[in-house]
Amino acid sequence: MRATRLEAFSDGVIAIIITIMVLELKVPPEHSPTDLLDVAPTFFAYVLSFLNVAIYWVNHHHLIHLVRRVSASVMWANLNLLFWLSLVPFATAYLGANHASSWSVALYGISAGLCAVAYYILRHAIACQTHDDPKVSQLHRCMLRKNRIGTGIYAVAVGTACYSRWLALALILLPAAMYFIPDREVEKLMGE
Amino acid sequence: MRATRLEAFSDGVIAIIITIMVLELKVPPEHSPTDLLDVAPTFFAYVLSFLNVAIYWVNHHHLIHLVRRVSASVMWANLNLLFWLSLVPFATAYLGANHASSWSVALYGISAGLCAVAYYILRHAIACQTHDDPKVSQLHRCMLRKNRIGTGIYAVAVGTACYSRWLALALILLPAAMYFIPDREVEKLMGE
Amino acid sequence: MRATRLEAFSDGVIAIIITIMVLELKVPPEHSPTDLLDVAPTFFAYVLSFLNVAIYWVNHHHLIHLVRRVSASVMWANLNLLFWLSLVPFATAYLGANHASSWSVALYGISAGLCAVAYYILRHAIACQTHDDPKVSQLHRCMLRKNRIGTGIYAVAVGTACYSRWLALALILLPAAMYFIPDREVEKLMGE
Amino acid sequence: MRATRLEAFSDGVIAIIITIMVLELKVPPEHSPTDLLDVAPTFFAYVLSFLNVAIYWVNHHHLIHLVRRVSASVMWANLNLLFWLSLVPFATAYLGANHASSWSVALYGISAGLCAVAYYILRHAIACQTHDDPKVSQLHRCMLRKNRIGTGIYAVAVGTACYSRWLALALILLPAAMYFIPDREVEKLMGE
Repeated sequence: MRATRLEAFSDGVIAIIITIMVLELKVPPEHSPTDLLDVAPTFFAYVLSFLNVAIYWVNHHHLIHLVRRVSASVMWANLNLLFWLSLVPFATAYLGANHASSWSVALYGISAGLCAVAYYILRHAIACQTHDDPKVSQLHRCMLRKNRIGTGIYAVAVGTACYSRWLALALILLPAAMYFIPDREVEKLMGE
Repeated sequence: MRATRLEAFSDGVIAIIITIMVLELKVPPEHSPTDLLDVAPTFFAYVLSFLNVAIYWVNHHHLIHLVRRVSASVMWANLNLLFWLSLVPFATAYLGANHASSWSVALYGISAGLCAVAYYILRHAIACQTHDDPKVSQLHRCMLRKNRIGTGIYAVAVGTACYSRWLALALILLPAAMYFIPDREVEKLMGE
Repeated sequence: MRATRLEAFSDGVIAIIITIMVLELKVPPEHSPTDLLDVAPTFFAYVLSFLNVAIYWVNHHHLIHLVRRVSASVMWANLNLLFWLSLVPFATAYLGANHASSWSVALYGISAGLCAVAYYILRHAIACQTHDDPKVSQLHRCMLRKNRIGTGIYAVAVGTACYSRWLALALILLPAAMYFIPDREVEKLMGE
Repeated sequence: MRATRLEAFSDGVIAIIITIMVLELKVPPEHSPTDLLDVAPTFFAYVLSFLNVAIYWVNHHHLIHLVRRVSASVMWANLNLLFWLSLVPFATAYLGANHASSWSVALYGISAGLCAVAYYILRHAIACQTHDDPKVSQLHRCMLRKNRIGTGIYAVAVGTACYSRWLALALILLPAAMYFIPDREVEKLMGE
């Protein structure tokens, strides 16, 4: 019952985060169609962040189903994740407003990386509760590895941003692609 | 249980989308009653979008009840719909700020059309799960046809906008009128 | 189950309406404590609207418990109420920005009156479903009368606003006071 | 069932409060990395308020589990708490915009203190319902004492702000630290 509560609150916060980002899409003061092009960078930043936050929502959903007991560490690890996710709208607005300049790409990569670390901490806190079930433990180990790879890619992206911002953006998209497909192992486990 | 989760998250996002549109109704800087008239175009754009999003909410509600299993394709088709719905507030603000100029009506029609396409994809993904029940299959076929007609009307509206923006707006209202009455077939099916 | 869904969505919209009003409390550009006084009218307008919307939430909650079946008329009457409630933040901001000028008080009264009418329509739609239970029918009749009185007071307040805005504001507070105490009859009925 | 409804609505409002605060993190108009430092005070104010509101959420959650019956006094005490929590985003924005000036720290302390008083009133209203269970009564007494200490610390912080704003800020952090760890007594009680 209490994991349901945690999930409902997280869903609420994630729903708000994903929706308020659209407020950054400001109507341009000029009225000609070409002025809409000014909104394009903010729009693409929004698409990227919508995708990322949606992936967190999907995976968070799978993860919370493995919670045995909402301990203090799980609760605060979850709030920590929500905190870093709540900064994504700022990083998105900054990326859009600066037309994906090197520094804004680096900041976006840092923001994405910190979310990945927070997600790692949350999964770790949940994994500690379930060392008795070998199948679930294996799943957590596998997902934690995937998470470390994703975090590493974000770190490389941040370092790359000052050389090539487009390469850095491509790297930032990589973990999203990795997580896009909901994990078959989790689904198999859920189905059993 | 998991379809409930999907519905709750979608409800949250739709509730936020429908409500943040009202933030575009800015208090005019001047204090005389006639200055309120400046808000009128934004107000009518808001009424139109509130109606459209409310119709999506009602129909989404009926649709989700037919979900057998929240597969990856259903989940992402749903997130895709939420993405296009989340752009409605921008199209609404643009329509209001430009006092329903040809181009702003066309953009609104494009936005409405893309939502309709996203809804089609979602229904199609859900319809694929239920080919065994002939009554539900028939319902899906009937609704998909209605959806295609609606999308077609939006396409015509976008094309019409550069000739007559008022005709285009009237066309944009047409699918809303088509969907306004919740489908008796769905209700009958639900009641059985 | 479906009344629960309606209530959850309404709760979401009302929660957002009640919270986004606080965004109107803008930080004054000057830093001295006396400049905070500029925020005072907006603050009092916020207090008034928070109280009003909270009362709607409480009464909506009691009302939805009496829904037998979420028919199309109940669903749209509910969405109609949410529409007029969603305009309260605008009326509140207008009242605050104009320092409770006659016209802004009248507009606030109109907004409050339209919400009351929408609530009347919703209760009427629900009352039509329950003519079989004499106790519930009596409750609805009693509440509809209370609602008519409240709407009448708002109408008088709008008319009074051009003579005395403070008297009009006092009148606007009256229905809130009438509804403040959750109805004992409903509670008694619920308890049985 | 009805305590669940109260909790769901409160969760919704708290989720929105915690998330809209991030809208104050405005993208600086200049594009160099050093300009991001201008956002730093608002960022730290956001961290402080996120922590405080999160603590209220966690404790509110524990508290609502002790509700026997959602009486009118509990409902309005809860709405009163939500009202004062809804002012936290304003106090946070004011603290950040004024770079933690003496007056803005005092205002933040006042805001935090009023939330603590509102929480006290809510717990008191709930405690009145459960005088029959000695264990729960003891728990309420213990928590009400903790709450009085917290409120006292906020009062001292407000008084201290005009002498030393940093000491005042440290004092404001103290009750947060006191509440950070979810109460073992509650958890023990829940576990029994």
